[in-house]
Amino acid sequence: MAATGVEILTIGDELIEGRIVDTHSAWISDRLFVSGLQVARHTSVGDDPGAIREALCEASRCSDAVVVCGGLGPTNDDLTAQAAARAFGRPVVLYDEALEHARAIFAGMGRTMPPNNARQARLPEGATLLENRRGTATGFYIDEGRCRLYFLPGVPHELRAMFDRLVLPDMRSRLEARLARIRSIKTFGLGESRIGMLLEDLGVRPPGRLRIQYRAAMPEVHVRLVLAGFAPGDPTGEAEMTRLERLVCDRLGHAVFTVGERGLPEVVLNLLEARGETVATAESCTGGLLASVLTSVPGASRTFLGSVVAYANAVKTGMLGVDGASIVRFGAVSEPVAGAMARGARKRLGSTWAMAITGIAGPSGGTAGKPVGTVYVAVDSGEGTVVEHRRFFGDRDRIRRFAAWAALDLLRRKRLNISPEPV
Amino acid sequence: MAATGVEILTIGDELIEGRIVDTHSAWISDRLFVSGLQVARHTSVGDDPGAIREALCEASRCSDAVVVCGGLGPTNDDLTAQAAARAFGRPVVLYDEALEHARAIFAGMGRTMPPNNARQARLPEGATLLENRRGTATGFYIDEGRCRLYFLPGVPHELRAMFDRLVLPDMRSRLEARLARIRSIKTFGLGESRIGMLLEDLGVRPPGRLRIQYRAAMPEVHVRLVLAGFAPGDPTGEAEMTRLERLVCDRLGHAVFTVGERGLPEVVLNLLEARGETVATAESCTGGLLASVLTSVPGASRTFLGSVVAYANAVKTGMLGVDGASIVRFGAVSEPVAGAMARGARKRLGSTWAMAITGIAGPSGGTAGKPVGTVYVAVDSGEGTVVEHRRFFGDRDRIRRFAAWAALDLLRRKRLNISPEPV
Repeated sequence: MAATGVEILTIGDELIEGRIVDTHSAWISDRLFVSGLQVARHTSVGDDPGAIREALCEASRCSDAVVVCGGLGPTNDDLTAQAAARAFGRPVVLYDEALEHARAIFAGMGRTMPPNNARQARLPEGATLLENRRGTATGFYIDEGRCRLYFLPGVPHELRAMFDRLVLPDMRSRLEARLARIRSIKTFGLGESRIGMLLEDLGVRPPGRLRIQYRAAMPEVHVRLVLAGFAPGDPTGEAEMTRLERLVCDRLGHAVFTVGERGLPEVVLNLLEARGETVATAESCTGGLLASVLTSVPGASRTFLGSVVAYANAVKTGMLGVDGASIVRFGAVSEPVAGAMARGARKRLGSTWAMAITGIAGPSGGTAGKPVGTVYVAVDSGEGTVVEHRRFFGDRDRIRRFAAWAALDLLRRKRLNISPEPV
Repeated sequence: MAATGVEILTIGDELIEGRIVDTHSAWISDRLFVSGLQVARHTSVGDDPGAIREALCEASRCSDAVVVCGGLGPTNDDLTAQAAARAFGRPVVLYDEALEHARAIFAGMGRTMPPNNARQARLPEGATLLENRRGTATGFYIDEGRCRLYFLPGVPHELRAMFDRLVLPDMRSRLEARLARIRSIKTFGLGESRIGMLLEDLGVRPPGRLRIQYRAAMPEVHVRLVLAGFAPGDPTGEAEMTRLERLVCDRLGHAVFTVGERGLPEVVLNLLEARGETVATAESCTGGLLASVLTSVPGASRTFLGSVVAYANAVKTGMLGVDGASIVRFGAVSEPVAGAMARGARKRLGSTWAMAITGIAGPSGGTAGKPVGTVYVAVDSGEGTVVEHRRFFGDRDRIRRFAAWAALDLLRRKRLNISPEPV
């Protein structure tokens, strides 16, 4: 492989046996990308000294920098430091500073360090230590030719803190990274391929400075504008980016719910909070998912009052005051019931707004007239109720998620006086 | 790298730029592992013809089988088939069968195939086609020396269906896989390191036939017993495994909630359903998460009636009948309020059982006496209420998830008449 910058190597049997998904590689790659550094390759190997050695040698030959994650723990499976020493023909040396660090961490928990943990201080000769403030495994880097290899423990919060504090600044100055400037335009209601078609002629592939990327964050689709080689105070770049942002927003219309980092639940809560309004929900097929995504936003309690999850019809009538006759006549999954649920939630919970959802999430329960994926979402404000009929596809989780977002988006459009038609 | 079996290669800029996490590699690895095939390495590269070519060549030299994912779409970024042809010195050929397939898929949607999609039928000479019943991209495999390379589209549901139907059976017969037999012992309430210590002397590392593995499925911890080289009807292996399962279950005690594939929400629903009982929930800090995980189980409606998400105190009093004075006196996050919420939910929703949760999920809202992570979970059955005080650590999401599981586990232990103390 040609010299192409940066490589990430993750180590552990749990990765190659499929017991866990490698989230480190994506997290580190995203951090580097935003800093203007492009990763060329991710590799994962198991806890096997030969495989680790070969992966290290190959990565060091091909890259300017390698971030190695995992295998620095105190047990027999943790082979990374030894494998690195063997790979590069270095002896393993006891680092007093690393030993003291592990002892101090145990002392801080009021415990004596078990003898095992002394292993974590035995690192390749010539290593520069990277302090781990949250755990016993000291990180380190070594230089091999033009390549610097950074070794970090696999525990996520330790790895992330060390990467941001020690590795990223070092890589940026060493590799002369120029920041990429990124702007996220977030949408709901249009598929990724539809958005791709709408923006096709705007998409500038390299070697252009400004690129458009897509990221599916189900059920949202994010359009990212990436300005490579951005220098702080670069007015041309800023202007180009703003021009492109306007073009993209014009083309995507009301599907755009924000430019920035917030997701749709937070955007909706903020919209209401800015006007001192509150919201409640009534949920059938989503079974609490809508309330759960709203309350996963810190500070939701300033706006969100509560929810009635009315899974059984008796709860729809008893707790939300839905008319039993209309359930019999139209079915629990119907426009009138969705509307009545929203009105009931608003009245009984005393909120400015209420959203309601009723539908068939599957896998069973569908009929010819109301197939799996049929969903009614409703919004009530006291001045009237709007209900939208939607049809979603996919498995139970996907249908529930789209249904929750459809309710949020209906409230957003209603609040902003945008035509209530789905885009 | 020495010849070591199987490698997975995933392709796409979105991977190495960190826009998405590579879930394919873990999914495929798990499927292979269960089938007795060990993956040696995962690699990801971007949409770069040179990088793809080199990764293909290297993988084919080192492995008996390579599963290549992604880059078979109709756009200019989709370079995998071309890169494979170049890598192995084969011309690209139009496969009529693949072209017809793409046309038929479009015809099925009542559309004419755009000219772009004809690209998807141009594959390396000598390819054997792999039918894709769900999309336009035909998969294929080619043999290079002793290595067979399987090429699959990156769309998850297409990839998974094709892998199970076409690739896995072929790999198993070609590589003479002997099934691994796996048993999952699922636990809640003990940390992974604590479980590791309790089972330390039972852990048989290779070359033993029977191994113990751990998998953190937050907030559950799963202990997997893996019997390698299992032949159907192998009575010794079965007996060994059952003996080990008993030992593990004895040591872990009530932390074990099932042996098998179900998660805790499903186990709890099944426990109640078997006795014809129903359940309702009342949630404050979890904000609907508990109801949401219960209703993500298909068929939950047979047991779960509904929930009141009482985020605001007025909802706790109005919808659940919690005494306002006790909120003032003890605080919304307190043992009396948790108990009253559970009683209120059971009475008002008319269920056999009710669970309630109140706590401080953070990041703000903690005090010296009730720090972030303080949670009360309650279970009421009409014959009495039990409340447990717990303290969890981590971010908002982690605390909410542990709180939901703590409530489920309290109900499980109560229903099974297990001592209500947390393990």
